[in-house]
Amino acid sequence: MPTERPTHVAATDGRPDFQVADLSLAGAGRHEIRLAEHEMPGLMSLRAEYADSQPLAGARIAGSLHMTVQTAVLIETLTALGAQVRWASCNIFSTQDAAAAAVVVGPGGTVDAPAGSPVFAWKGETLEEYWACAERIFDWGAGDDGQPLGPNMILDDGGDATMLVLKGVEFEAAGAVPAATEDDSEEYALVLELLRRSLAADPQRWTRTAAGIKGVSEETTTGVHRLVEFHRAGVLPFPAINVNDAVTKSKFDNKYGTRHSLIDGINRATDVLIGGKVALVAGYGDVGKGCAESLRGQGARVLITEIDPICALQAAMDGYQVVRLDDVVDQVDIVVTATGNKDIVMASHMARMKHQAIVGNIGHFDNEIDMAGLARVPGVERVEVKPQVHEWRFPADGERPAHSIIVLSEGRLLNLGNATGHPSFVMSNSFSNQTIAQIELFTRAEDYPVGVHLLPKHLDEKVARLHLDALGVQLTELTKAQADYIGVDVAGPYKPDAYRY
Amino acid sequence: MPTERPTHVAATDGRPDFQVADLSLAGAGRHEIRLAEHEMPGLMSLRAEYADSQPLAGARIAGSLHMTVQTAVLIETLTALGAQVRWASCNIFSTQDAAAAAVVVGPGGTVDAPAGSPVFAWKGETLEEYWACAERIFDWGAGDDGQPLGPNMILDDGGDATMLVLKGVEFEAAGAVPAATEDDSEEYALVLELLRRSLAADPQRWTRTAAGIKGVSEETTTGVHRLVEFHRAGVLPFPAINVNDAVTKSKFDNKYGTRHSLIDGINRATDVLIGGKVALVAGYGDVGKGCAESLRGQGARVLITEIDPICALQAAMDGYQVVRLDDVVDQVDIVVTATGNKDIVMASHMARMKHQAIVGNIGHFDNEIDMAGLARVPGVERVEVKPQVHEWRFPADGERPAHSIIVLSEGRLLNLGNATGHPSFVMSNSFSNQTIAQIELFTRAEDYPVGVHLLPKHLDEKVARLHLDALGVQLTELTKAQADYIGVDVAGPYKPDAYRY
Amino acid sequence: MPTERPTHVAATDGRPDFQVADLSLAGAGRHEIRLAEHEMPGLMSLRAEYADSQPLAGARIAGSLHMTVQTAVLIETLTALGAQVRWASCNIFSTQDAAAAAVVVGPGGTVDAPAGSPVFAWKGETLEEYWACAERIFDWGAGDDGQPLGPNMILDDGGDATMLVLKGVEFEAAGAVPAATEDDSEEYALVLELLRRSLAADPQRWTRTAAGIKGVSEETTTGVHRLVEFHRAGVLPFPAINVNDAVTKSKFDNKYGTRHSLIDGINRATDVLIGGKVALVAGYGDVGKGCAESLRGQGARVLITEIDPICALQAAMDGYQVVRLDDVVDQVDIVVTATGNKDIVMASHMARMKHQAIVGNIGHFDNEIDMAGLARVPGVERVEVKPQVHEWRFPADGERPAHSIIVLSEGRLLNLGNATGHPSFVMSNSFSNQTIAQIELFTRAEDYPVGVHLLPKHLDEKVARLHLDALGVQLTELTKAQADYIGVDVAGPYKPDAYRY
Amino acid sequence: MPTERPTHVAATDGRPDFQVADLSLAGAGRHEIRLAEHEMPGLMSLRAEYADSQPLAGARIAGSLHMTVQTAVLIETLTALGAQVRWASCNIFSTQDAAAAAVVVGPGGTVDAPAGSPVFAWKGETLEEYWACAERIFDWGAGDDGQPLGPNMILDDGGDATMLVLKGVEFEAAGAVPAATEDDSEEYALVLELLRRSLAADPQRWTRTAAGIKGVSEETTTGVHRLVEFHRAGVLPFPAINVNDAVTKSKFDNKYGTRHSLIDGINRATDVLIGGKVALVAGYGDVGKGCAESLRGQGARVLITEIDPICALQAAMDGYQVVRLDDVVDQVDIVVTATGNKDIVMASHMARMKHQAIVGNIGHFDNEIDMAGLARVPGVERVEVKPQVHEWRFPADGERPAHSIIVLSEGRLLNLGNATGHPSFVMSNSFSNQTIAQIELFTRAEDYPVGVHLLPKHLDEKVARLHLDALGVQLTELTKAQADYIGVDVAGPYKPDAYRY
Repeated sequence: MPTERPTHVAATDGRPDFQVADLSLAGAGRHEIRLAEHEMPGLMSLRAEYADSQPLAGARIAGSLHMTVQTAVLIETLTALGAQVRWASCNIFSTQDAAAAAVVVGPGGTVDAPAGSPVFAWKGETLEEYWACAERIFDWGAGDDGQPLGPNMILDDGGDATMLVLKGVEFEAAGAVPAATEDDSEEYALVLELLRRSLAADPQRWTRTAAGIKGVSEETTTGVHRLVEFHRAGVLPFPAINVNDAVTKSKFDNKYGTRHSLIDGINRATDVLIGGKVALVAGYGDVGKGCAESLRGQGARVLITEIDPICALQAAMDGYQVVRLDDVVDQVDIVVTATGNKDIVMASHMARMKHQAIVGNIGHFDNEIDMAGLARVPGVERVEVKPQVHEWRFPADGERPAHSIIVLSEGRLLNLGNATGHPSFVMSNSFSNQTIAQIELFTRAEDYPVGVHLLPKHLDEKVARLHLDALGVQLTELTKAQADYIGVDVAGPYKPDAYRY
Repeated sequence: MPTERPTHVAATDGRPDFQVADLSLAGAGRHEIRLAEHEMPGLMSLRAEYADSQPLAGARIAGSLHMTVQTAVLIETLTALGAQVRWASCNIFSTQDAAAAAVVVGPGGTVDAPAGSPVFAWKGETLEEYWACAERIFDWGAGDDGQPLGPNMILDDGGDATMLVLKGVEFEAAGAVPAATEDDSEEYALVLELLRRSLAADPQRWTRTAAGIKGVSEETTTGVHRLVEFHRAGVLPFPAINVNDAVTKSKFDNKYGTRHSLIDGINRATDVLIGGKVALVAGYGDVGKGCAESLRGQGARVLITEIDPICALQAAMDGYQVVRLDDVVDQVDIVVTATGNKDIVMASHMARMKHQAIVGNIGHFDNEIDMAGLARVPGVERVEVKPQVHEWRFPADGERPAHSIIVLSEGRLLNLGNATGHPSFVMSNSFSNQTIAQIELFTRAEDYPVGVHLLPKHLDEKVARLHLDALGVQLTELTKAQADYIGVDVAGPYKPDAYRY
Repeated sequence: MPTERPTHVAATDGRPDFQVADLSLAGAGRHEIRLAEHEMPGLMSLRAEYADSQPLAGARIAGSLHMTVQTAVLIETLTALGAQVRWASCNIFSTQDAAAAAVVVGPGGTVDAPAGSPVFAWKGETLEEYWACAERIFDWGAGDDGQPLGPNMILDDGGDATMLVLKGVEFEAAGAVPAATEDDSEEYALVLELLRRSLAADPQRWTRTAAGIKGVSEETTTGVHRLVEFHRAGVLPFPAINVNDAVTKSKFDNKYGTRHSLIDGINRATDVLIGGKVALVAGYGDVGKGCAESLRGQGARVLITEIDPICALQAAMDGYQVVRLDDVVDQVDIVVTATGNKDIVMASHMARMKHQAIVGNIGHFDNEIDMAGLARVPGVERVEVKPQVHEWRFPADGERPAHSIIVLSEGRLLNLGNATGHPSFVMSNSFSNQTIAQIELFTRAEDYPVGVHLLPKHLDEKVARLHLDALGVQLTELTKAQADYIGVDVAGPYKPDAYRY
Repeated sequence: MPTERPTHVAATDGRPDFQVADLSLAGAGRHEIRLAEHEMPGLMSLRAEYADSQPLAGARIAGSLHMTVQTAVLIETLTALGAQVRWASCNIFSTQDAAAAAVVVGPGGTVDAPAGSPVFAWKGETLEEYWACAERIFDWGAGDDGQPLGPNMILDDGGDATMLVLKGVEFEAAGAVPAATEDDSEEYALVLELLRRSLAADPQRWTRTAAGIKGVSEETTTGVHRLVEFHRAGVLPFPAINVNDAVTKSKFDNKYGTRHSLIDGINRATDVLIGGKVALVAGYGDVGKGCAESLRGQGARVLITEIDPICALQAAMDGYQVVRLDDVVDQVDIVVTATGNKDIVMASHMARMKHQAIVGNIGHFDNEIDMAGLARVPGVERVEVKPQVHEWRFPADGERPAHSIIVLSEGRLLNLGNATGHPSFVMSNSFSNQTIAQIELFTRAEDYPVGVHLLPKHLDEKVARLHLDALGVQLTELTKAQADYIGVDVAGPYKPDAYRY
């Protein structure tokens, strides 16, 4: 068990607990939260709308999502609506310690008398610590009846929290936790070990926990994919809402978010003039569309690679040259992967690139770029320019002299590694969907049978609506006659479900 | 019966028939068709792909769709794939007579020995003539067995052809055609009259026709809406394919098509510099997005009105000011409606516009602009600047001096009235979908039970694929490992059905 | 003398005269003039500003400039400021007969009692007629003293009017007009013949005319070039103002004007979808910049060719690929020349183009495209698609099958031939400069010694200022302290003369 | 004398000297220089071109310009061409210590045996230190003849180095240095004190120095302005080249540079999503044009303020709304000043802004924003968010609740304070001009009489040419016939001097 981190008395449940390391950061975190609140009008509007009705009163939410300043605003929105919350991060590196500290202290608390929510997260956890933190969000002490208490809601990002519960249920039903096999990852071995200890200590813990949960809202493609698989396998015991595919989530995260953060990441990493450069974006989905727009907006010439003929045709109709990487790899100055697939930029590509070509990934995992292959190139040398920016030096060979390429964030997401991730306004859209999803699942269980649901379109529209004032948008209202004419309600929803926006 | 048009011997069925007025135009039409073929690579590729297999051999297609040069390329694609075709227009004004003549003469025929397909359409039909033409596409003479022959496929645009059949079936079942009521339009009264004559002449004609039809492919939103209503009412007797909502149809028609034709229409109508002007686009769906992009591309400042908060948010994120028409109507130089709704620009708006403000509609019907209200403004005067361009002069009132506005195409679609509709490349996408839909319905009936179907995504992707070469697009191919990694087939489809592009 | 055109009694000088053919067009022309006035706020503002002071009272202006609707607004502005005007066109094809008729009739006149200005121009003059018209603008009958009267101002476009006077002076001084040589063009032979007749009839006519002229304002690069040459040769007898290089003239004509009219011309000529196409623009000066922006605004991918490294670098920084035509000629769909040079697109290029590639010129003369070479290609065939649009069919050769290209306006300026030239708002900028130049030369002779002058910057700024209201622009005013701080006057000029905008 | 900084043995002249603090940074600096060299193709090309001819052999250059990584590449280019160099910064904050250290050590030296050029600059000098550094670049020890040696060239940025010499000359001629008056700035008093000491020590020092100088090349508007004033006053003793107004300098620095660095600065400072925001840019000169383009490229809606009607008209023609700040100050999210003037955003404006509006300056001095007035607002509070980012909190008043604004870089240039200034590629253009200007003045004195000169256009074109390869630009070459046709040389220059690009 990780014990080297200082522990704190939890703010809300009176039990000794380990949390973020250093509450002295809470002041700085509170200042950042206050600035972020202004950029998260969706969440602030929800606080105002539901201040009286307290729809989440009675909700005990186990949250697993990057513990950032923006998440702090989410957490405090959930509690402002009546919920109790325990939080862990869904990533070992992404926690902003000041934000975590501020959440623990709470807006009305002090370092000495914290009055916020327990947070189990810090920047730079080990994997073992990570899973210990995950376990803690399910441990709500004892209820009034003296029985162990669990959450009744999960708010998940990537599905780790949900997976922990469901694996626990599976092994409790089996009466045993299997040994890790050779094929299992190191991380999964840690999960098995955790569940083995749990099974020994309380053989019905996860079964009982699962039974108490009314639903889960999930943030990401990966997590939704896992939920669908669970449901397909018949083991999903509660309803789930797929927040990821709300229009106001996916377009913001993918298109507008990357339009912002791609060039931000490249700029912070390299200080290289983007104007006039030749930039290749692999993939013309929403992420690729955002990347291409921002690079063009800086005066770069943008090339696109695509495997989907429809997206390729869109790229052409938007005026981009659609090429194969192989054909142009020696002519491009900047290569960005935005595919969600693997093996996009291979070591053999990088060997052929221009001297000091910049290579970055804004798609999903670091396997979009063949980092492993790069490291195996004979004679290649890796020089740190600064953290998250590395020059990889290829030795001269018969054909060409030595050259270097610049790899951002070691092939991981450059907008996280070289910039600061999504801006608050983007997250306000995601998190308004999350908040509404929690309300829906907690208060309208009858509408959400077990399964994986999208939020109904009128709620997607509501999230959009909450962000209009901040941008000075004046919405027109349908007359009744107009609404009847197109067969919708004056209040929406206005489009069929399949509408593509 | 309209008899004032010269009649011709039909090319393909040996029966005397009335067709387009003047086959002497066929040469000019053939030249235009040849130029258009190059811009319709989807259709030309389909001709090449299916030259040998002749999947439409045996198909007798009753087509009802604007008889333009592009439609000529469609018709000749269908016949190149083995079909027999009889064609009418779906609009009394839209026929291009030279194209119609060329189709009748056919690529291998002469004016004296036409060898093409019968076409029942000319520019400027009366409504009575229009419906007589519609009837003729269902009259295929007698079969080998001497029995009256009908089509076995419908290719429809707006649903008039399908409606004629289904209303015929309904009244034949009832044994009587109702009298037109006061609420019925003049046009519907003509339809009733036609069916009344038909019922008297052959009381099972439409029932027999319907029974012979394997399916219908429908081009437009309106037609799809009608099909869905028929199916909901339980009276749709054959499967239908909704071509309208294919990505390669809707994005092309709506976004890329209007991006092209909006400014083309404004330019031809007014010769007014668009740069520097303030242009308002009502609606930010696909059509509005295309309009806004093209106006900005010409240096206009673009304002958007929207009723849907998601689309409004998209407009803001794209950098447009989102306003209410009421608030800015006296500051805009150009107003374009792109809503698909009615009562967008009212006479009271037009009374407040800047002198010589330009008003046009690229949405759906002329009721987006309150033309009726405009004509009722006391003292208003309508002066024709040139065909399809009218100055409406408002008299001075107490508040302001006399002023004029310029209304394009009398409030009807300006890209049809003031420009030449969608370019061939756009129609190549629509019509490739139509052709593939005809093949699907004719050859794979088992996959399409009665109901309204979208084309499966792999066929949507195929249509895109057929247009890439012409644009110099180099598509990348997935490796098997990559395809497995994202859980798709190497050949596609690549996206889930709900993907928004 | 051309006598086959009907003649009319001149409106303003009481002498029988030949003018535009058909005054019955005057009503239509007046309607168009009224619409254009709204789009020419610069001229209308000048009318208002100078209505009382009548700065051009006493001016007798000989005008030689395309007789279009916009020029009609210019002419009537000049007369509204007190001038008398006689007008000819500077091009045999560019006259809009209705506009010419309306100018003759005048806003207050009738067909039977015309009260406007004499216009000697019609669409489709012969060269002989053209020069006869040019001569007539210098013939103002007899003055009060009974002596022949000439103009005291010239307003010129291309320099023909000024050249006629100066050549006349030269030959009168020599006492003889030389015979045309083999090297002289047919047109110059006509000029010599005209001057020979004039010398015989009145051996001091042009000497006397030149002596009476206070100055000339010139519209074009070509005309300015001629004036500079005359001045360099010591034969320019009066001051000239170079209107062409005013910022408000050159940027509007070149950049904003072509941004508008390039795609207008391509659209009207071909109806081809520009989106997704590969378009090459030869030259990235102001015209090329306008072309590239408009093509990109329509979704084309734009390639640039340049010979000037600074302009080439600008193109790259604006995100365009800069190529050599030779390297890409077989990959482009649209080629536009915008160079002001010759031999840009050669027959050998056209032989290598894609089938149905579109070739047009928006630069200067038709020698940007090698039309002569094209016509000499063995086996090439020219087919008229419609007026000003020709398909040139190359026969098959060993390497490739037969192919065609589409040439716009026979290689001449496509925005004139296929569209309607510059919109009124663009011309309002040019013509406001012209009007102000006439006022300057007529009323402030002391500031303009013999030579070729630019308008002072404060007048260039004035022209801009006159166009702001129409676009809703709110200009900020400098405080005195701010003006002092940057060392300018509150009222401007605000920039040094070399400022590049 | 400032003595608190560690001193070092100068690398190149064998005399004890104080220089940058910490040569241990030289390794890091060398790495950055190596990366920057690739992005400065103009300088690297000049090194290659002049490696053999060594045109600056014998030049002793006193340089005063921000001591950054890019300047290091400049310095080492000058020395590669044969020059000796002594360098100071022209700003107390802008020195990058690692770059300075690397220059001292030199590419071939070591920390213990530095072999580079003496640099007198470090980040965070006092004003007194700043002028002491400036003095040191004129002190070249003794020549072979034992006499004190000075530079024979100045490379200046802002004119401080030149001013020091000329003021020295002036006071030496007068025989006395005047006392500082009340109107003199604190800084000027330090200059007087320095010159007073100098006069006492060596009464002919500056006169002798000035006599030895062959010329100065000046980087900035401010410095050029000073030079012109000196020349007008008849005291400029040597020729000057105005590098600032080369096209390849001004467009790059102003337009492309700010297009890059504006959003970079805003992003690093605030992490606020720019998309969808309303951003106002004050001024639409080259800097404003770059700002507007980059903000629009990120999806902001951009408003412009202008005092010059021509620039205002350009903004309108580019599709921007042109407003007065007073009219919209309560509606904008981001305000950027780009005017080169003072008093643009006043405290009274900031009092009316939206909560958390962002205010930054990218124009010239911090007086574009009324920082002094802001600090005097009763009750206003300044909270540091992070270095160079401050929240200014306005107290509630009768009309509105408390609100904050975010001020970047304390009103000074945000691209320097919040980002990293101009990228290397931009500086490569400026510094190629500088290098060429030094060569011209040093080797072709006969072409540059005393006065302030622009570089001839062919050298401006040369600088552009040096940057094309790096961007993959393929330049087309004129044929002789084409060059003759437009009256230029095949090798350029291609445009008249007044051409506006």
